[in-house]
Amino acid sequence: MSKPKAVVLLSGGMDSATTAAVAVQQGFDVHGLSFRYGQRHALELQAAHRTAEGLGLSRHVVLNIDLRAIGGSALTDDIAVPKDTNLSEIGRRIPSTYVPARNTIFLSFALALAEVIGASDIFIGANALDYSGYPDCRPEYFQAFQRLANLATRSGVETGLSVTIHTPLIQLSKREIIRTGLALGVDFSATLSCYDPAPDGAACGRCDACQLRLKGFRELGMEDPAPYQSHTVSGRREETA
Amino acid sequence: MSKPKAVVLLSGGMDSATTAAVAVQQGFDVHGLSFRYGQRHALELQAAHRTAEGLGLSRHVVLNIDLRAIGGSALTDDIAVPKDTNLSEIGRRIPSTYVPARNTIFLSFALALAEVIGASDIFIGANALDYSGYPDCRPEYFQAFQRLANLATRSGVETGLSVTIHTPLIQLSKREIIRTGLALGVDFSATLSCYDPAPDGAACGRCDACQLRLKGFRELGMEDPAPYQSHTVSGRREETA
Repeated sequence: MSKPKAVVLLSGGMDSATTAAVAVQQGFDVHGLSFRYGQRHALELQAAHRTAEGLGLSRHVVLNIDLRAIGGSALTDDIAVPKDTNLSEIGRRIPSTYVPARNTIFLSFALALAEVIGASDIFIGANALDYSGYPDCRPEYFQAFQRLANLATRSGVETGLSVTIHTPLIQLSKREIIRTGLALGVDFSATLSCYDPAPDGAACGRCDACQLRLKGFRELGMEDPAPYQSHTVSGRREETA
Repeated sequence: MSKPKAVVLLSGGMDSATTAAVAVQQGFDVHGLSFRYGQRHALELQAAHRTAEGLGLSRHVVLNIDLRAIGGSALTDDIAVPKDTNLSEIGRRIPSTYVPARNTIFLSFALALAEVIGASDIFIGANALDYSGYPDCRPEYFQAFQRLANLATRSGVETGLSVTIHTPLIQLSKREIIRTGLALGVDFSATLSCYDPAPDGAACGRCDACQLRLKGFRELGMEDPAPYQSHTVSGRREETA
């Protein structure tokens, strides 16, 4: 019997890599989906590709979409990415790196792809604990999307097949995500979480995404294997502060 | 006081043109939103542009998205558009012109644009009566999207401003849509509803969209002012059958 198919959103970061590994481990034939959305760093697409290869996914689809034409975010526009935010402040407000309706847009395309390939499972590496305060990362948001998905598609209407939105990391801390990924063979050196990497792909170590990631590795007593810009001393910056 | 802004999805067809006219009449500063999504006929974008100009909209945004890479529809792939379906059969099954998750994708972008421009109203010309049997045209689908929208966005979370999805045509027949549009000054000769128009923009008169539209004009005892390919005799084809 062939494996059931699943669509997994791949951002290139450590959360989506771990999520894809979870989907593989659960026995799905995983189709990775990434977006070229006018983000400043296409480096994350390279990271997504490395992850897809490393996990042996059967397919990695990259779609072009035009979020720059909408604007409104530090990740698509010429707005500065916040750096050195106090860790205790991260997640308290919605930061300028929030891309309006991004997860809704990404999940909509994932739903379209799922319908075309005959998948009824969609995985997204969202995280409601050590997260950046984005509204579309909360469990109630994903429940609402799942409800929508089952009203939106031909398969739902004609076959009664229901779509499931899987968020396996939603209640995990960064530390737990790293531990899960390591247990499943994720190569975190190939992932890129930084919002503002150098042209060679080295992470800044100072944006919210870097800070949360470094904290996770630090709590495990490990060094993040991904490349960082030298001044961040491989993630040990905060320990000496 | 400046008018409240609204985003209106503009497909180039008569339903979205009437919807935009309703939004203008309700006092909104209307921002039209259309998509270049790999559809076979970019002619519909020209029709959307004519509609936006005719109604004096303050802005018409066209986004490039990549639905062809997903496939699965007669509107994006090399699948034949169904012709001459018996009128009583239209809407009973989901036809091959259904684009997977299209309204979900379009509404997601509308939500993003609404958030960036500070609009809390989104209009879509969906229609659940004389419709083509698409699952994402039903009232319960739009209710689910509105619920999602209010969980998805910064404005919903930070300001409690709620997003409203307006579907002013949802319970209207094609005849009523035409009557509404005419009363609001919509120029239906500038609109294009056909799924398979000739290169010069003349409608085929035989696809589901043409048949439903022609039926509406016929019931009003009017001739559709839009151009049709000659063999369809300006929409009087069915009357002689």
